[in-house]
Amino acid sequence: MTPAAALERILHIEIPISKEMGVRVASYDGTSLSLAAPLAPNINRHGTAFAGSLYSLAVLCGWGLLDLKLAEAKLHKHIVIQESSIRYLHPVEHDLDAECRLDNDAFKHFLRTLNKHGRARLSLDVTISQDNLPAVEFSGRYVVHG
Amino acid sequence: MTPAAALERILHIEIPISKEMGVRVASYDGTSLSLAAPLAPNINRHGTAFAGSLYSLAVLCGWGLLDLKLAEAKLHKHIVIQESSIRYLHPVEHDLDAECRLDNDAFKHFLRTLNKHGRARLSLDVTISQDNLPAVEFSGRYVVHG
Repeated sequence: MTPAAALERILHIEIPISKEMGVRVASYDGTSLSLAAPLAPNINRHGTAFAGSLYSLAVLCGWGLLDLKLAEAKLHKHIVIQESSIRYLHPVEHDLDAECRLDNDAFKHFLRTLNKHGRARLSLDVTISQDNLPAVEFSGRYVVHG
Repeated sequence: MTPAAALERILHIEIPISKEMGVRVASYDGTSLSLAAPLAPNINRHGTAFAGSLYSLAVLCGWGLLDLKLAEAKLHKHIVIQESSIRYLHPVEHDLDAECRLDNDAFKHFLRTLNKHGRARLSLDVTISQDNLPAVEFSGRYVVHG
């Protein structure tokens, strides 16, 4: 099983609402993770994506990328989200597609802090796009420890 | 059917993921709305509430309160969330309990703007408490129009 397939399995087992949302790993190339979800289970009264589902997909995308990168570094740690903000630029009318791309320099600095102090923070940005334009912008601060 | 019961029904029909989450209207007194959800369907890998479910409950609590207050004012409008921020202070280890309380002066000002321009913004704060202490603090800016 690839790390991306393992991540999807972990999400569905350990965070059951992600399975109800239909979250799946769309792609992972070592730097960028994309998560997708169908519109139908995540719809709101306007026939577009529910704000909470968009947020959940974004927070899972940042968490998932960090989980994959920590596993590659052979670090088995707790990841928790400390705070985040989200801006809804346009309604999402199709299936949901989130992408988080790692800043390699920021991640190296994060790993140094984590190795030194056993605890470190990393801010990750996630974009949900529609027709190749940003529809939702998420920024989350994750804390890793344990 | 009371307005609070009608709200719960609308949530489950129009935002199906809210039904999967087990969201219910816990109380409404004309100024304050409480929404609740059981931990089980909203759990994460640490056995505490998933950050995305906490956000979804909070964003629905603000939306629901605004929907109830607009209905009381005989205004049938679209409500959308424009942007929000959330801080996770403590893990939520029990069932989820969110409360949004209206600032009556801010709401009167909002209604004046809405009547004048057909469009207005309102910021609402939602707190998810555990053992009577805040565990999650959410602040959302909602836009009403249409």
